[in-house]
Amino acid sequence: MTGARDPIPPTIEWRRGRVRLVDQRELPRRLCFLECASVGELIDAIRSLAVRGAPALGAAGAYGVALAASTIPTARGVRSAAARLARARPTAVNLSWGVERALAAYSAGGAAAALAEAQRIAHADVAGNRALGAFGAALIDDGARALTHCNTGSLATVGYGTALGVIRAAAESDKRVHVWVDETRPLLQGARLTAWELGRLEIPYTIVTDSMAGSLFACGDVDVVIVGADRIAANGDVANKIGTYTLAVLADRHDVPFFVAAPTTTIDLHTDTGAAIPIENRDSREVLRFGGTSTAPRQARAANRAFDVTPASLVRAIVTDQGIAHPPFRQSLRDLAQR
Amino acid sequence: MTGARDPIPPTIEWRRGRVRLVDQRELPRRLCFLECASVGELIDAIRSLAVRGAPALGAAGAYGVALAASTIPTARGVRSAAARLARARPTAVNLSWGVERALAAYSAGGAAAALAEAQRIAHADVAGNRALGAFGAALIDDGARALTHCNTGSLATVGYGTALGVIRAAAESDKRVHVWVDETRPLLQGARLTAWELGRLEIPYTIVTDSMAGSLFACGDVDVVIVGADRIAANGDVANKIGTYTLAVLADRHDVPFFVAAPTTTIDLHTDTGAAIPIENRDSREVLRFGGTSTAPRQARAANRAFDVTPASLVRAIVTDQGIAHPPFRQSLRDLAQR
Repeated sequence: MTGARDPIPPTIEWRRGRVRLVDQRELPRRLCFLECASVGELIDAIRSLAVRGAPALGAAGAYGVALAASTIPTARGVRSAAARLARARPTAVNLSWGVERALAAYSAGGAAAALAEAQRIAHADVAGNRALGAFGAALIDDGARALTHCNTGSLATVGYGTALGVIRAAAESDKRVHVWVDETRPLLQGARLTAWELGRLEIPYTIVTDSMAGSLFACGDVDVVIVGADRIAANGDVANKIGTYTLAVLADRHDVPFFVAAPTTTIDLHTDTGAAIPIENRDSREVLRFGGTSTAPRQARAANRAFDVTPASLVRAIVTDQGIAHPPFRQSLRDLAQR
Repeated sequence: MTGARDPIPPTIEWRRGRVRLVDQRELPRRLCFLECASVGELIDAIRSLAVRGAPALGAAGAYGVALAASTIPTARGVRSAAARLARARPTAVNLSWGVERALAAYSAGGAAAALAEAQRIAHADVAGNRALGAFGAALIDDGARALTHCNTGSLATVGYGTALGVIRAAAESDKRVHVWVDETRPLLQGARLTAWELGRLEIPYTIVTDSMAGSLFACGDVDVVIVGADRIAANGDVANKIGTYTLAVLADRHDVPFFVAAPTTTIDLHTDTGAAIPIENRDSREVLRFGGTSTAPRQARAANRAFDVTPASLVRAIVTDQGIAHPPFRQSLRDLAQR
């Protein structure tokens, strides 16, 4: 899907009636695949982050409906499974978008139509990300030291990536780029996944703890920040992985450009501002334990908000597959989303 | 040293010719002690963070000279061991200060005088921290939700603590306080040590990842930030655990008071500004591993700056054992340090 020579396999594919995923819980230790034969298995994979990233969840939602349509005999059963799937994670709008698209195809043309729609979504994701990367690469200067957060690469999409795709496109156009990789606690998608992808792509990088970003800005070590998004409200407020807002505040203080990269499917014109975006709270054990080992006292409590909201005023531009949106975003996002 | 009923044992003590430490690498799993019989063993304990925290390092430096004086036969050998000890960690000024104080006593009166000076420093630390706590408690409102970073409690000092001592003093004066505990990557001094102390003190707290702080500010969940310091320059710039600067920037943006608490021994009038404070770079494996497990690809590189510098302009006040310093700090710190 991303070409025979892509050093990173497709995140999600339809294989012999099953949904095959790169099992991201196992990276970077080993590259292995998870085959989901039922919607229940796919929901478990989504909740446990075997597959994650807003664009990848869009494809997962659509393939999940195809899976439901091919395994559940009644239309009522398919709709019920699709509804459960759409609710598996609340913040990224792409999941319910993918479910709705495939469900509409199913209503019109049955299981085969649902699968065809899922395949279209998956192919369009990779093509869109390559387009997004080409638009965004113009924003990255030769020699730039780019800071990114979480994972927005091939693994967060069907292939190629969003924010990390921009960095990849800049590198592929022979710009020298060095990437500061925020490790991204609690689940370390930066240290585990982004570092793994950059290694495969032979793009130089250095991992830092999330709390080290301030020192990088203060020492003049960051030229540009580029992150992804889980949902972009109509006014340009951006929900993204917890810690993103802090980077935007630091970038603003140090007059470093802060860019968001996401497909137009992540723009939710029905959500007026970031205040209306539902923020997922995850199990506190993700913060209190690591690799089965408790890191805090036994009775300790932790908060585990998975996302935060960056106000549009801190975002310099939003790079999409349809072009780059500039402030004021209410107008520019509507224009792009309706192309 | 901190009283028979203190729920937290003294961090460092002289016991039968040895320096006995709470081994902080083992917390919160178990409370155990490390007995150092030589300066080499003490240096290892300092470098591996079995004992850490600027005020505790001041006492460790002084006790280390007492240990050298009682185990090394020549004055030249004692001085050489003292010089190695003073260089064990570069950022906290207290370590070399403690070494110098005990070495001066040794020069004047031999091993017994060095030990007496170390004991004076240790006793003065606890008394000073209690005074600091009383001054600082006035800055904490009843019902306050206080955010803190790293560990600045009893374990970072000989006893009672600095920033966490302020919170403790507020709680002991019957104010209701809830503490947001930054976990403090890479070594989790917040999740491991601060949470352990707050549990023993029965002060309610919630652990958060360092990257969650931005969301707490944005949601109006933080009333006050209070942190410690490893070195305070003459102009009021503060070197403290990596991540502190980010909290100061967030507090500034959200108009939340940002306080620093440290004994006057942490004020270094010979260092003019934060730019002159040496920042320790530690082993990248502390970032690339988590609880003994590798979290990043095998070839991954990481940066591991242990401290950052918060400019004086972001600090609302500095709480010390001699009183509270307000801006402009160049004058107020000199006045306090010379009391």
